[in-house]
Amino acid sequence: MKFGRFGHQGRVFFGAVEGDQVTELEGPIFENHKITSKKHALSTLKTLVPCMPPNFYCAGLNYAAHIEWANRRTGGNRKAPEKADIGYRSNNALIATGEAIVIPADSVGPVEFEGELVAVIGKKARNLSEKDALSCVLGYTLGNDVSERGWQKQDRTLWRAKNCDTFKPMGPFIVTGLDPMKLTVSIRVNGKPAAEYGTDKMLFSAQHYISRISKYMTLQPGDVVWLGTDGATEPDLKDGDTVEIAQKDIGVLRNPVTRAKA
Amino acid sequence: MKFGRFGHQGRVFFGAVEGDQVTELEGPIFENHKITSKKHALSTLKTLVPCMPPNFYCAGLNYAAHIEWANRRTGGNRKAPEKADIGYRSNNALIATGEAIVIPADSVGPVEFEGELVAVIGKKARNLSEKDALSCVLGYTLGNDVSERGWQKQDRTLWRAKNCDTFKPMGPFIVTGLDPMKLTVSIRVNGKPAAEYGTDKMLFSAQHYISRISKYMTLQPGDVVWLGTDGATEPDLKDGDTVEIAQKDIGVLRNPVTRAKA
Repeated sequence: MKFGRFGHQGRVFFGAVEGDQVTELEGPIFENHKITSKKHALSTLKTLVPCMPPNFYCAGLNYAAHIEWANRRTGGNRKAPEKADIGYRSNNALIATGEAIVIPADSVGPVEFEGELVAVIGKKARNLSEKDALSCVLGYTLGNDVSERGWQKQDRTLWRAKNCDTFKPMGPFIVTGLDPMKLTVSIRVNGKPAAEYGTDKMLFSAQHYISRISKYMTLQPGDVVWLGTDGATEPDLKDGDTVEIAQKDIGVLRNPVTRAKA
Repeated sequence: MKFGRFGHQGRVFFGAVEGDQVTELEGPIFENHKITSKKHALSTLKTLVPCMPPNFYCAGLNYAAHIEWANRRTGGNRKAPEKADIGYRSNNALIATGEAIVIPADSVGPVEFEGELVAVIGKKARNLSEKDALSCVLGYTLGNDVSERGWQKQDRTLWRAKNCDTFKPMGPFIVTGLDPMKLTVSIRVNGKPAAEYGTDKMLFSAQHYISRISKYMTLQPGDVVWLGTDGATEPDLKDGDTVEIAQKDIGVLRNPVTRAKA
């Protein structure tokens, strides 16, 4: 199944997507929703962020080639983390596919993409084993963990570097039935391939992260776990660019880039 | 005004608190709510977390005496931050007054309180000057930024140290019309005074934090900004303790402490 959240004539609803057609659902996708008889052409709807997470978890440094590339680029010496310690992002930054990533006027740059697979939690869960961890997952979507590298270096926390308004594109849809460890995520800037990686290269698996979080935290329907990015995150994003994160089953998360005027 | 969120016979509603009486409101306190004619004795209601924040901001290291104390205790050498860089906490950890702080079975400890003043945002805001920053604030409540110091030291992030389920008591009520820079916050453990400080000692004022956040992030109704703690955060919290964070206008945020069985 492919689920989305949509806006139409002032209403917001979840829908099931098949090709270019969307069937309206009654109720949230996380509960016992009903399939209605209302159908729409996808092109007539505004595709929204697929869910607004109660808790917004992310894996940092979850692929070796990304850590190596970042060390080469910054002259740093970060090692792969020894444990799957999770981080947080904030809902203010979420935007849907099609909406603009706005680089703040005072950004020192560079601003870079990070294309990520995102697990969307479907039901309340606590203390899951790795074996059972994916049982709480409804499906998977894509995220772009847009990062202001200057602020990432300067600031004591990642607040501006990662959480400026518009810095967290997520979508377009949530797809069920995927194996999160066997997907290929592709990133394009202005239509040109920029990066591509297999999720089989995760340092800590989706199962491990979700199990570990659930040892201390109750996972809630709609919570998201962003699973990290691999490889280089160049070229830098600039005013006028378009960045796409793509996976063949989930689709394309496509966002134009603009720069705010001072 | 003093606002709270309450549960009663399966319903959840906001209410205005006067003494021991609660008047039910229709709609959320952040919008044009209506005052209804339904009144309850406060003691007949379950007091809930006063709001579930869309974004959960916090100030780290915002009082000099707390930094000095932490350095003495840990043999560290942290300096006061040069800028008001904000951090995040997560909603899974929120509990109401009266609910138990549960120390995980595998906690290495110590587990400590941090009594904090919390600004609750009342309306959407962006790019506020310091002078206008408090115009978006509905009122103030109290928070206990419960911290597992062993994990705070061991882990790469603060996820377990600060965000385990039940580690973020918040409440009891939201009070309007207070000056956030002129309040006294008192902490008691098992009824005995443990710490007390004046919010006039903040390194970066509430105005400064809120203005700075709003330069990059759209503040939303219900967002919370936890403003840091001062001084020592001893004695450690142990199974069977009760910890109270108090301010004379807002009231007392009181939570028992238990330890999970392995």
